[in-house]
Amino acid sequence: MAHDVTFHPSSLRADPAGFHLAAVPTDATPGWDGGKAAGVQALADLAPALMDLQERLYAERTRSVLLVLQGMDTSGKGGTLKHTVGLVDPQGVRITSFKAPTDEERAHDFLWRIERAAPEPGYVGVFDRSHYEDVLIGRVRSLAPPEEIDRRYAAINDFEARLTEQGTTVLKCMLHISAQEQRERLLARLDAPEKHWKFNPGDLDERAFWPAYQEAYEIAIERTSTEHAPWYVVPSDRKWYRNLAIGHLLHATLAGLDPQWPAADFDVDEQRRRLVSEKPLG
Amino acid sequence: MAHDVTFHPSSLRADPAGFHLAAVPTDATPGWDGGKAAGVQALADLAPALMDLQERLYAERTRSVLLVLQGMDTSGKGGTLKHTVGLVDPQGVRITSFKAPTDEERAHDFLWRIERAAPEPGYVGVFDRSHYEDVLIGRVRSLAPPEEIDRRYAAINDFEARLTEQGTTVLKCMLHISAQEQRERLLARLDAPEKHWKFNPGDLDERAFWPAYQEAYEIAIERTSTEHAPWYVVPSDRKWYRNLAIGHLLHATLAGLDPQWPAADFDVDEQRRRLVSEKPLG
Repeated sequence: MAHDVTFHPSSLRADPAGFHLAAVPTDATPGWDGGKAAGVQALADLAPALMDLQERLYAERTRSVLLVLQGMDTSGKGGTLKHTVGLVDPQGVRITSFKAPTDEERAHDFLWRIERAAPEPGYVGVFDRSHYEDVLIGRVRSLAPPEEIDRRYAAINDFEARLTEQGTTVLKCMLHISAQEQRERLLARLDAPEKHWKFNPGDLDERAFWPAYQEAYEIAIERTSTEHAPWYVVPSDRKWYRNLAIGHLLHATLAGLDPQWPAADFDVDEQRRRLVSEKPLG
Repeated sequence: MAHDVTFHPSSLRADPAGFHLAAVPTDATPGWDGGKAAGVQALADLAPALMDLQERLYAERTRSVLLVLQGMDTSGKGGTLKHTVGLVDPQGVRITSFKAPTDEERAHDFLWRIERAAPEPGYVGVFDRSHYEDVLIGRVRSLAPPEEIDRRYAAINDFEARLTEQGTTVLKCMLHISAQEQRERLLARLDAPEKHWKFNPGDLDERAFWPAYQEAYEIAIERTSTEHAPWYVVPSDRKWYRNLAIGHLLHATLAGLDPQWPAADFDVDEQRRRLVSEKPLG
């Protein structure tokens, strides 16, 4: 049975000591030996438990989860939103997609727009791209002086520590694909008219910097993998595995919080009596 | 086959000429004679088409839909978010739950916080409660002088006309339940510890004003059912019917917009050549 296969998302956790991104395969399925069909079924089987945990978190209204999705173009951030985040109640989810900063955002510290999007208690916040862009494209394209880029890693760690102290559990996933896989996905977008809107010629300009981006990811993961906010590198050449792995990571994060249905802060019997003995309405 | 049963959501449209809310049954299933099991299946069958239309709207980024959900406590606004809105890609959905206004919100016109939550182009915005609270609880509980309440109906019509002109299609649904059904749902919340967090003793205080609320809804629907933003009164004693009906209303609204995948604004062949002939990366 698919759900008897044990999945260990902890094996995806990046070890910052001498982290080498190139050593992490993009097409493997670590922790899962059930194949695709069973993997798709296992995610569907996980959905009720994921929904239950998320609803308890929402009911509690004291803590929150922030899922950070980072990855190269076509790595599947949007697909993860649809297939994995889409499994829980949208009422308790806050998705923020970060684009190139506006003039107003650029006039502030790079974390200004990020802090404003942090999830309120009870919510699962999801960042589709994030503050990490400021040490990824920021570094690769020299959008800030080297000393400013350098300053940002510690600023990010401080920020995430603060989030954690305030009750937000930070779950950071890098969707790891190969350059060859990206090439195939970009060609697929060009081949399908209904996917043209997802394609931007600028994506190819960024692709030309592939090795520099991989290096920037490696440095970011090495310098911001902390006890309170570790990175998980998710092999993402296989979309079904990516969805399943992130589903399990989200599930493990919520289960770790063990949210509970809040106890009534009123006298249940008294309220029941009020209803049972009410006078005719109107 | 379930999906061969034709559903006509237009039959739920309120006719403002001499509108009588009490004449609308709460437990009927207008437009649907397939029963519950087939109704649940029909909503599942509708999901792919709903997702496709919503993704096209998102891709276009020119128009938007605003789904307004109003109804008495327990009428199923949250259930609609989970079971119907939850069928589409959460990336393209913006849900706003309106609570009692804050001091800052109260210091502004009642529409101030509403306008700020209007959906951007491409999005399906959903209001869980809305500006209508200001002519519902506002009227029933005399939260504003009668002449101010009176002013608001026209202000709402102007506001919704403006939204429509700017490309937002407004879909307003009243989730219509009977007082007896609310009583049973409130008792069910009291009987289940995992539902206690949804119960508030204040809900019973509001319930005591049931006839006044029904009158306030009737007046609101009569005065704000316009050509550009009609009201749909959805019999909601049966949860499966409510989910199915609102799913069909949302589908009909999106289908009416007939959103199209945007054409490429770049030379597809040129981009394909760039990819196929690229130099080794790095």
